[in-house]
Amino acid sequence: MIVTVTPNPAYDVTYSVPALVPGEVHRVSTVRQRVGGKGINVARVLTGLGERCVALCLGDSAFAAAAAADGVELECVGGLAHVRRTLVVQGDDGTTTSLWEPGHAADLGAAAALAELAGRRVASAAGLVVSGSLPPGVPSSLPAELARMAVVAGVPVVVDVDDEALLLAAAVPGVVLMPNGDELGRLTGCPTTHVVEVVAAADRLLAEGVGAVVATRGAAGIVAATRDGAWLARLDHPLSGNPTGAGDAAAAAVIRGLSQGDPDWPSLLTDAVATSAAAVLSPVAGHVDAAHRAELLDRVVVVAVPLSRSAK
Amino acid sequence: MIVTVTPNPAYDVTYSVPALVPGEVHRVSTVRQRVGGKGINVARVLTGLGERCVALCLGDSAFAAAAAADGVELECVGGLAHVRRTLVVQGDDGTTTSLWEPGHAADLGAAAALAELAGRRVASAAGLVVSGSLPPGVPSSLPAELARMAVVAGVPVVVDVDDEALLLAAAVPGVVLMPNGDELGRLTGCPTTHVVEVVAAADRLLAEGVGAVVATRGAAGIVAATRDGAWLARLDHPLSGNPTGAGDAAAAAVIRGLSQGDPDWPSLLTDAVATSAAAVLSPVAGHVDAAHRAELLDRVVVVAVPLSRSAK
Repeated sequence: MIVTVTPNPAYDVTYSVPALVPGEVHRVSTVRQRVGGKGINVARVLTGLGERCVALCLGDSAFAAAAAADGVELECVGGLAHVRRTLVVQGDDGTTTSLWEPGHAADLGAAAALAELAGRRVASAAGLVVSGSLPPGVPSSLPAELARMAVVAGVPVVVDVDDEALLLAAAVPGVVLMPNGDELGRLTGCPTTHVVEVVAAADRLLAEGVGAVVATRGAAGIVAATRDGAWLARLDHPLSGNPTGAGDAAAAAVIRGLSQGDPDWPSLLTDAVATSAAAVLSPVAGHVDAAHRAELLDRVVVVAVPLSRSAK
Repeated sequence: MIVTVTPNPAYDVTYSVPALVPGEVHRVSTVRQRVGGKGINVARVLTGLGERCVALCLGDSAFAAAAAADGVELECVGGLAHVRRTLVVQGDDGTTTSLWEPGHAADLGAAAALAELAGRRVASAAGLVVSGSLPPGVPSSLPAELARMAVVAGVPVVVDVDDEALLLAAAVPGVVLMPNGDELGRLTGCPTTHVVEVVAAADRLLAEGVGAVVATRGAAGIVAATRDGAWLARLDHPLSGNPTGAGDAAAAAVIRGLSQGDPDWPSLLTDAVATSAAAVLSPVAGHVDAAHRAELLDRVVVVAVPLSRSAK
């Protein structure tokens, strides 16, 4: 069983309109809604890949009911008066416009309740993913605390957060971080434009005790730096499609690989790129088609990047 | 007690963004949400004017709870799996963009349950307002049925609906219709650009048994045709502001006047224009400030329009 934690869940809502025109009134032709937030999206991909997975989150009873209807196994500790919406307005003209509501403030005690639940679940888990933003009222130390629980329990843990929460998580020995290039740059103060820069920035974190850094770079693939070496993994040529949720699909593949024991990183990264690319091909954000994923495995190129570090 | 009926309620949601740009991702700075739908907006205005009022609607338990939090007395018969949202995106650049979700289909029996509840409430009511669109699954005859109940009970009734529902409601003797100019034109097949055309179109409906027609014309005021005469009522000069909900404010004033007995139409129309204009001045859609309304009463001009009808 893999456990994911989503402190700031959302309803992902998609509106279809002929074209979005500022200043006009639009009658929305179709409304699609499902439960989302990064950890929940990871859980959906894992479930689709046949992995047993439970998503833990803040939220309310209506959100838990909506998740059940969506086929996501979810445990919700409450703590949010209202679950935010992330709205995507899709124009028939091909334009995608996003409007992200801010998260409502969590109740006092909500973060502690989520940590307590995660602690119970992690003890018997094969892997933990903590990802996404934090609503007001949840301390930035929560992802690091959860990661530390997993490390103490000997459970692989992937953390995909930003800013202060990323800084604190980077201090947990053995944690696997999944920042994008910009987040990694802000965390380390290093340039992250080129692959060798990404590896150099990630290597600083390894020197401080981080287990691995898997940096997602959109259509430019994934760069990973680990104690076993560093690699660039990417498709032979980029795909066009819907990139929303591609990072969560990559995180699903990474935790799945780590949960199966000491990983062969080139294989794990091949899987992560193919899974992420399959998500890009799907019109539904974060959905992964198994046949697409299998086909894409043959199109992934993995290149070792030399590490200039003085000592392992 | 005045009763309003809203077959197709909505959550009115307002997003604030710096500027809406198609194709971009926007972090919404503030989200405001309240219960809406035309009959509920009428009830909110009436409550603000110190009238006792109850809004009846389809919906679900969460919607009823949200109404209570909003200070609107509401009775909800259920019948909707999901209450639609009407989203307004307000840019700091002054642009207002609207996205209206379609109503979800009502459960079988929902319309009958609403009619049954309305029947019980109308028997002891001082007035009834039926307004707004109908969700799929609710027959277009519902507003006419409700109006007929009120007429039979000797209760004044205002109907603000469109299309087939308006056509059917126009066959109820004594009903007061509140179409806008376009709706009146479609119903009668008559031009409704000029005041005299509006009066002529309305007069046809009076000849068929309608009690009065109060046609709202936005900044151009209100034209009413009744068995006592016809009038144009408008401000001395138009206001700029937020016109959303102005028609509902006018309906609130009209039912309030009718509920107090045989109306003095010029006074009633003065009140309706001032109440509607006060709603335009409010940044919150459909909110009426009592002081604004009182000031605006002195700015309303009422002009009698000659009726060319052959016989009363």
